[in-house]
Amino acid sequence: MPIIAVDANGADLGPAEVAAGATAAARQGVRVLLFGPAAEMGNAGVGVEVIDAPLSIAKEANPAAAARAHPESSIVRAAKAVAAGDADALVSAGATGAALAAGLFNIKRDRGILRPALAAQIPVPGAPVTLVDVGANTEVRAEHLVQFAFMGVALASVVHGVDNPRVALLSVGEESTRGTQLVLDVHARLSSTTELNFVGNIEGHALTEGRADVVVTDGFTGNVTLKVMEGVSSKMLAELRDIATSTRRARYGGALMRPALRAFRDEISPETEGGAYLLGLRKIGVVGHGRFTAVGFESAILLAARGVSGDVVGRTHDALERAGVLRKLGPAPSESSSTVSA
Amino acid sequence: MPIIAVDANGADLGPAEVAAGATAAARQGVRVLLFGPAAEMGNAGVGVEVIDAPLSIAKEANPAAAARAHPESSIVRAAKAVAAGDADALVSAGATGAALAAGLFNIKRDRGILRPALAAQIPVPGAPVTLVDVGANTEVRAEHLVQFAFMGVALASVVHGVDNPRVALLSVGEESTRGTQLVLDVHARLSSTTELNFVGNIEGHALTEGRADVVVTDGFTGNVTLKVMEGVSSKMLAELRDIATSTRRARYGGALMRPALRAFRDEISPETEGGAYLLGLRKIGVVGHGRFTAVGFESAILLAARGVSGDVVGRTHDALERAGVLRKLGPAPSESSSTVSA
Repeated sequence: MPIIAVDANGADLGPAEVAAGATAAARQGVRVLLFGPAAEMGNAGVGVEVIDAPLSIAKEANPAAAARAHPESSIVRAAKAVAAGDADALVSAGATGAALAAGLFNIKRDRGILRPALAAQIPVPGAPVTLVDVGANTEVRAEHLVQFAFMGVALASVVHGVDNPRVALLSVGEESTRGTQLVLDVHARLSSTTELNFVGNIEGHALTEGRADVVVTDGFTGNVTLKVMEGVSSKMLAELRDIATSTRRARYGGALMRPALRAFRDEISPETEGGAYLLGLRKIGVVGHGRFTAVGFESAILLAARGVSGDVVGRTHDALERAGVLRKLGPAPSESSSTVSA
Repeated sequence: MPIIAVDANGADLGPAEVAAGATAAARQGVRVLLFGPAAEMGNAGVGVEVIDAPLSIAKEANPAAAARAHPESSIVRAAKAVAAGDADALVSAGATGAALAAGLFNIKRDRGILRPALAAQIPVPGAPVTLVDVGANTEVRAEHLVQFAFMGVALASVVHGVDNPRVALLSVGEESTRGTQLVLDVHARLSSTTELNFVGNIEGHALTEGRADVVVTDGFTGNVTLKVMEGVSSKMLAELRDIATSTRRARYGGALMRPALRAFRDEISPETEGGAYLLGLRKIGVVGHGRFTAVGFESAILLAARGVSGDVVGRTHDALERAGVLRKLGPAPSESSSTVSA
């Protein structure tokens, strides 16, 4: 039974919403250590242990400095619980920078990993895609993106059961000559890596066309991409609701289509997936959306538990080792604040 | 009556599709000079003059080199017609790099402009957004993005009638401390520019939330963003069609909703808008999608004609001059191939 350390601070709807999600997840056989303001979280259910940690650094402008300065903050205490072995995985209710800093300083990077990355499963109907990085690293070098590709592949095969995942590089054209200098460099490296099923560059529209199982990009582009996708699908569902009440005829039609539309809405909702995996630390993390309701936080905790059961960390490490792309020598470089600027 | 020089090469459906769009546009009072393979374009209608220019450089890996090496290519001949004053605007059927190179070398940059940029109007229902740059410049400096902001504002006010347009910078968080170093620099500059109604950073999901009239970003992120938006909306419409035939009940519902859905589909179709304005040259350009049908090419030509009638070039120049962000001194730098790598 996996034990998940959850930071209840950072959610738009407040810590009680995270607590409700934790209670729902615990009903499905996960144990939760819930770090946050006990006074605001109400009575947690069976399987949820509330640890009073009211201080939040979720909104700090410099999360790395805040994580160092505030060891008593909820996210740092949750990360320390994972580092100490009291929990198997870390879940954050939305503050990527704080989770990354707390994870780096306490759980630490896995051996040979240059940078942790956030990998999100995009729920494209019939053609789900693992997008990495969706926001851990706003500025990266080519060797980082090569590692991200292997992390994504490990995730796609281990958690999502994809056989020999197709890896693509996000760019502004399919040709190897298209993109920034970084993209050209990464394209060349991925092309020469025989351990990957690299299918080349893809453009933005191809993300929803089932052309790749894993799509690699820097954390700036990936974060914008993920949020644009969520924004467009949410806006379209809102427009459909308007259309379905615009005329009497459309109202009848909307009522008849409602059950099928509701299933579709749930299928593509970010709350169903539960957020993004934080990969590259010695234990797995999950970063949810600050905008989640309890349903999303429940999914995030269950996603973390699946990562633990599937040994995503160990299997990612093995894949990177087999491919020979782990950093080889010397001590780990110090964790600079630039690493966690996202 | 504006005269538009159109390159018929580069369209996925072939030059005849562009010719059909040109004929439809000419019926609405635009004159078209159509450069492409005469043998493949059939009989053009009244108001369309076909100039036989079969050579296409639309698929060249290095468009700048190709535009220099092939003065007889269709896009270069079209650009030369604009430069010579035989036409008022340039329309390309999809090859951004070739159009940019041919435009830079022949129509030339407007005085004081550092880089041309592509500005697309995103048809968000109830809250259209001008996104700039959507692909002319994959690598940029802060001063380029500042000019792009003013170009976008000029376009939003002149062509789209927005009063005092709200300008936002695309990033991974709303705080001024979030994003790449480039984004931080641009944020600081736009914040201190009193001539702009700068509303700060916005994230990807806010593009569809009516939070800004103009959104500024580099050409790599902008191109990915635009294509992701098109991909997601197209995939969702396809899913809706599937849902509307999935059960007998949904089929009845779908039939009742069809007229309203069709209007919505047309409203958000890229073909309705007609592509992106190429701003920063001495004459205006429009770059359509290679995937357009005749409907899209008709829109592209009419979009170019509106740009001519509204004097977008002159009014953009005036806005940049008033704001004091035109490059001040010296001759124009030579047009390097890196400028047109996108």
